[in-house]
Amino acid sequence: MPKIVDHDERRREISAAITQIIVAEGFERVTMRELAARIGFAHGVIIKYFPNKQSILAAAVTQLYSGVNERLAGQVEGYRGLEGLERMFRALLPFGSEAVLRARAVIAFWNYAVHNLELSAIHRENNLMWRREFHRFLVEAREDGELGSHVDIDAAVNRIVVSSAGWQMTAVLLPEFTRAAHLEQELTTLMESLRAPEKQGMSPRKGAAQVAPSEAPID
Amino acid sequence: MPKIVDHDERRREISAAITQIIVAEGFERVTMRELAARIGFAHGVIIKYFPNKQSILAAAVTQLYSGVNERLAGQVEGYRGLEGLERMFRALLPFGSEAVLRARAVIAFWNYAVHNLELSAIHRENNLMWRREFHRFLVEAREDGELGSHVDIDAAVNRIVVSSAGWQMTAVLLPEFTRAAHLEQELTTLMESLRAPEKQGMSPRKGAAQVAPSEAPID
Repeated sequence: MPKIVDHDERRREISAAITQIIVAEGFERVTMRELAARIGFAHGVIIKYFPNKQSILAAAVTQLYSGVNERLAGQVEGYRGLEGLERMFRALLPFGSEAVLRARAVIAFWNYAVHNLELSAIHRENNLMWRREFHRFLVEAREDGELGSHVDIDAAVNRIVVSSAGWQMTAVLLPEFTRAAHLEQELTTLMESLRAPEKQGMSPRKGAAQVAPSEAPID
Repeated sequence: MPKIVDHDERRREISAAITQIIVAEGFERVTMRELAARIGFAHGVIIKYFPNKQSILAAAVTQLYSGVNERLAGQVEGYRGLEGLERMFRALLPFGSEAVLRARAVIAFWNYAVHNLELSAIHRENNLMWRREFHRFLVEAREDGELGSHVDIDAAVNRIVVSSAGWQMTAVLLPEFTRAAHLEQELTTLMESLRAPEKQGMSPRKGAAQVAPSEAPID
């Protein structure tokens, strides 16, 4: 009987194997033939699913972002306002060695995305999704009276997402400034700036609770 | 008479021409032969000065950073404290189309630096220099009573430099969030967070002047 091939499954399998190699070693150095040899597929099979390196990179990055976003969703589910925001920012910051490896892949991806519309669109879509989430948390924080009245929500979203990108670069190229203690400081700095006490003469949200940075236990 | 060649000058000339091409078009696509042809030098001459693409990239990036740092120095000279800091941060943010082109080159550079010690060292050295400058401005701001007592200087330096990196990426891949108005917002957000009014019950720097974001005229 002829073997039935689940093409979607095989595609995922190839892309997962290649993502691992890219994360560990970068993308420039490996050729399609090497990739094929190392993940144990014939070159002819690989190019049936991925005709060129760009298409592999697109699949690998989509998979990488999916993994990150699944983890994110698990971290913020059931939380709202500043607590949700803090948990989400924490999940995006490069804590730990796996996150640093991911950051290497992300930097490679940025560089390719500059000259490639498909990659750039994947990047944009993912970034917009993060922005919507942070925006929602900030709106909730305002509703709940947690947010300093001086905070401009759109500016805060931009500051948070941009900062998260900057930390990916630093984690890879300046690890001595990206230890867990530094990332914790950045979290504290951000959360304090969002919860900052009201300025004199501005709107009277004095009653807003000054919640201490919460650290809900992770099961 | 044999022509006397100023090798340093020629090296600079080649590197300047190549920097322009890299900034405009990226680095992956061009070969050494193409570069040679386009800047009007024989391939044999180029490789005498730059034996491979990595060495060209190193020279190009050194030149790019030199240009940025010269401009920076001109912007901050004679300023101190928060005013100096704001002017320096402003000069690093990607205002204008030339800065966006530079940001493209910077992203390519990050990606190469991940796998190359020489490039990574150039990046580190430059980054450390910026950090020292921001640190100095913050120390001056504290001396002058401008800085909120809640501000941790090292954390602030990290936040500023990391953020500046993040904006380079955004300028290239998400230009719709990196317009001049967004960068102005980020400047305001940062400066407000540094000048923030004292928290209740903390150290009594109540007398600290609340200086409005200054905008010294540029001649």
